[in-house]
Formats: sequence, C-alpha cells, structure tokens
Amino acid sequence: MSTICETTLRVRYAETDQMAVVYHSNYIIWFEVGRVELLRQLGFSYLEMEQDDLNLPVVEVRCRFKHPARYDDEITIRTRLTQMRSSLLRFQYEVLRKADGQLLAEGESVHVVVGPDMKRTHLTGKYREAFHTAAENTEPKAICAGPACSTSSSDTITKKGN
Amino acid sequence: MSTICETTLRVRYAETDQMAVVYHSNYIIWFEVGRVELLRQLGFSYLEMEQDDLNLPVVEVRCRFKHPARYDDEITIRTRLTQMRSSLLRFQYEVLRKADGQLLAEGESVHVVVGPDMKRTHLTGKYREAFHTAAENTEPKAICAGPACSTSSSDTITKKGN
Amino acid sequence: MSTICETTLRVRYAETDQMAVVYHSNYIIWFEVGRVELLRQLGFSYLEMEQDDLNLPVVEVRCRFKHPARYDDEITIRTRLTQMRSSLLRFQYEVLRKADGQLLAEGESVHVVVGPDMKRTHLTGKYREAFHTAAENTEPKAICAGPACSTSSSDTITKKGN
Amino acid sequence: MSTICETTLRVRYAETDQMAVVYHSNYIIWFEVGRVELLRQLGFSYLEMEQDDLNLPVVEVRCRFKHPARYDDEITIRTRLTQMRSSLLRFQYEVLRKADGQLLAEGESVHVVVGPDMKRTHLTGKYREAFHTAAENTEPKAICAGPACSTSSSDTITKKGN
Repeated sequence: MSTICETTLRVRYAETDQMAVVYHSNYIIWFEVGRVELLRQLGFSYLEMEQDDLNLPVVEVRCRFKHPARYDDEITIRTRLTQMRSSLLRFQYEVLRKADGQLLAEGESVHVVVGPDMKRTHLTGKYREAFHTAAENTEPKAICAGPACSTSSSDTITKKGN
Repeated sequence: MSTICETTLRVRYAETDQMAVVYHSNYIIWFEVGRVELLRQLGFSYLEMEQDDLNLPVVEVRCRFKHPARYDDEITIRTRLTQMRSSLLRFQYEVLRKADGQLLAEGESVHVVVGPDMKRTHLTGKYREAFHTAAENTEPKAICAGPACSTSSSDTITKKGN
Repeated sequence: MSTICETTLRVRYAETDQMAVVYHSNYIIWFEVGRVELLRQLGFSYLEMEQDDLNLPVVEVRCRFKHPARYDDEITIRTRLTQMRSSLLRFQYEVLRKADGQLLAEGESVHVVVGPDMKRTHLTGKYREAFHTAAENTEPKAICAGPACSTSSSDTITKKGN
Repeated sequence: MSTICETTLRVRYAETDQMAVVYHSNYIIWFEVGRVELLRQLGFSYLEMEQDDLNLPVVEVRCRFKHPARYDDEITIRTRLTQMRSSLLRFQYEVLRKADGQLLAEGESVHVVVGPDMKRTHLTGKYREAFHTAAENTEPKAICAGPACSTSSSDTITKKGN
C-alpha cells in the first residue's frame, strides 16, 4: 500500500503577493490539500472522519521556504504520515514545482484527535488501522497521484490533478 | 441615531497580489468587517445574533472597483443598511483610502435571515427594531468610528429591546 | 472552437466558515480559476498576457448565491466570455456541485485591459483574435474540461481536475 | 525604547472554518500584522523598506496552537525581534485572547534580507540600527500598542488597535 501521496494544484493569482511570489501562509493551506488527499488514498475522506465525530485540529505547523512558487506554477504536494499515536498524527510535506521537480518548501504539521467537543479522543476502527499501516510504511513504495488516488491502491505512479 | 458606520483597517501584505494592489476578493471580506461593525453600532454583535439562532448568509454581493487599494494603506469602510424586510437585509459599502478620502470601491450585499437549519426565518425582537430604525435613517446624521464605537458611550448608540 | 470552459476544484477546509459552508468571497476566487482556464483554452495563459504587458484587473464583480457549497464538494466552474471590446472583457460564471449538477452560484466579472502602468490599453494580435472568436461563440458547442483544456481544442467533453 | 509590540485585531468571519474556530493558516497572517507594527514602532514601515529596495521574505515559520481563537474575539499579537544578523531577522509571536489574556498560540518566523532581485543583501543605515537596538532589548521594558505605536516611542502602555 502506498504511504506517500502526491497531489497537484495550480497557483492562483489570489495566492500571490506584491513580491510576485506566493504569499507564505498559502503553503499551510496546500499542506491541508496534501493531507486530505493522503487520507483519501487511505480509503476515507476527512469529511467522513468528521461525520464519525473525529476531528484533527492542527496543534503545530512548521514550514521552511527554499524557493518561491510563482503564479500559474503547477505545484506538487508530497505528503507522508511520519508519526501515529492513538491521539496524535504527524505529517510531513514537500512542495515541489512540477515542471522541474525543484523543491520549493518543506514542512510538517502535528494534529491531535478530538471529538466535536474539542476534547481529546482516540482513533478507532478503520481509521486507526489505516493510519497505523500508513505510518509503518514511510519508505516510498508507490506514489499516488492526487484526487483519484482514493480509488487506487496501485503500486505504480499515476499522476493526475489540476 | 446613526445609520452609517465607518470603520478602518490597514491593508495586509497577504491581501496584495502580484499586480501590487489588493486582490479584489478581499474587498468582499472588508464588506464583512464594515457590516459587523454596523451591527455593533446598533447595539449587538453578529456573534450574539448567531447565538440567538439568527444567521445572515449572503445571497448576493456586488462590487465596483474604481482605484486600487495598496499595501499598508489605511482603509475606511463606510457601511449603511439600505433595505430591511422581515427576512432580508441590504447593505451598501464605500471603501475609501483614509489618507485622502479617495473612493476606491463601492458595493452592496443582500442577506437573508435563516435559522441554524439554513431555513428562512424572520428578524424578531431587538434585532427587528434595531435594523428597522437603521434602515429608516439612511441619511447620514452621525458617523460612528469602527472598532471603538461599540465601547463608546456616544449618544449615537441606542440599545433597544433589552 | 469551444467557448465555454468547465474546470473543477475541490472545496478546501480553509474555504469553509463556521456556518459550515464555503465563505462567500471564495467564489470570487473560483471565478478567477474558471477565467484563467478559459484563457488557457483559448491558447494562452494569463501569465503570458502579463509578460506581454497586458493586465486584466477586475472593475466589477457580482455573485448570486443559491445553494451553499460545502467542504470536500467537487465544484465545477463554467465560464463564458459574454462581451469583448477592445479594452473591456465581461465573463459569466456558473458554479455547480459536480455530483448532481446543482447550480450553487452564478456571477460575472468585468475587466479592463491595462498596461503595467495600470493605464488603459487595447487587446492586440493573438489576444484580440482569440477573445473575439470566443465572444462570438457564446452558444455552447463544446465544453472543455479544466486544466487539460489548454492542449485540446476538441469538440468532446473530457473532464479532469481535482 | 520598546522592543515588544502589541497590536490588536478582531477575528473575521472569513477567518473561521467549519470547526467554528479560526483556521490555522490565518495565525501566520496575524504574525505579519504583528511584525509590521513592530517595524512601525521602530520608526519606519515595511512599505518604506520595500521602497528602499529591502525585502524580508519568510524563510521559515512555525506556530504552536494551544487554544482556539473564535469568531469576533479580540486578539492581541505580541511581537519581539529575537535575533538580528546583517541579513537575517528572527521574530517571535504570542497570540492572546484580549479579553482574558489567554495564550492561544505562539510562533516564530525567520526572514532573510533580499533586494528586489531576491538576492541576499544586508540591512543598512537606519534599518540596521533600529533592528540592532530592538534585538538587544528583548526584555520587555515597554509595550507599544498596535497601529498607533508608530508615532509613539513612549514607555507607557497605550492600547489601541483596529
């Protein structure tokens, strides 16, 4: 099973700033895009988790910016789950320029598992299993490719996205 | 009683785009800033309305852009309630550069009154009275001044229905 | 040649608000996504236009909201050029929920053609021709499909996107 | 001279998400708000720095989230310069709920000094001096208060904000 998810997006004009690069906080939103696609790859959506009364608020986020992303660039977000405990998840992200594979930024986010009351709770059932498997397989075996990866447990690289 | 609310904000770098002006969708967010300060001037907060199970989702918004707002500009949002029916509110906005009063944009938004289930409902009690009074007085008599107007003991603030 | 562009995107958590729907100003950003994909369908990118010293700032935008978009929804943006003059362009947008085709919002934006100095100028050369052709063909002949439509002038519907 | 800057802002509806808290990437934008007000307190604006061909792109940002900020909360951003080298600046931030002083988040950002060509350069003249002084005085002596602090080098606490 794949444990790395690659998804792509295109830089919006709205995401640029007057330095003619992507404003830095948008990378944090892109992390979210990568993370939810990784979940979809694991067989469920974050929407479904919320409906099952499991939320994953961010308790820490970090990003190092290496090269600027620019307007209209196609961006690849490569996401891995690097740590999984019963009520904590840690994801790592690489943001790359799709055209040449240049690494633009890397970062991570830490999430706790809470219920709708924002109180700590534990991953259960299929979620626990899926995250557990994903966290074990942090060596890249296969790379999924964005939106469609939810329906594929393929071991091959198939790139899609917008 | 005042029916115009003026509030000010400063343009954030995050709000600029690579044309070195404020990206246009941010004006729509500024309208929100103006609108909630107008409500505060009327004696209550939008937060309070939501807690009383009244929401005001936007059903239409329009903006005409005349001159660009730029980074670090101080911006004045001038907001009026121009129409009020039992389950519909219409607000008008002027966005001005504070330094010289230059009109940068103008627009309006139309809102329906719904309950937490997103079903149409009616303004009641103090809300109905306050909006009714505000909508009658669309000629500028007094001008409130943004964030501080809620905490000011000025005679422009009148609380009803308590 | 196609004159309607359909592109898809997925609602980000960042785009929701505490009413558990997409915050309204984000639709204005989605209009941008639709517009730039229409341009790509016409054979060039907005990036290329800017590099050729042609900018298209928004001078008016309008949106009517009919049904809320929600987290994780796949959204289709259907964009048409409805008016073209030598220094003015008008686009129309329909925002649909992809799953069932429900119309969520519709709107339009008006743009002037300016140079890097923000002074009015005229569309020339390939841009003038492409927009002219697009504006003539406002009856749907074919529907392009987002990111990939730039390389295709096909008359068939091929949907991609995330 | 003060080396801590406190500025306040009010949470916008646009900044909330469907968990009914502020979406996490907005704190990174609030850091920017705090940072530019600290600069203003030092006697200049970031706008002025840019006009003098000095840009401060973010090369690293980090935030730990402790308690959620909610809609309409008044938020205090407390900003300090904790490190200053000739071409690098490090800022620390505390985000507090103004009503009760509850610490909601803390973080830091690291910036390099570049010219308009995005090449590394050095702080010079008044900028170098001002940042140098600020970095020396990391023990709180006085606290400035937001937007108005630019005109005051007072040793007293005077709170304003937008």
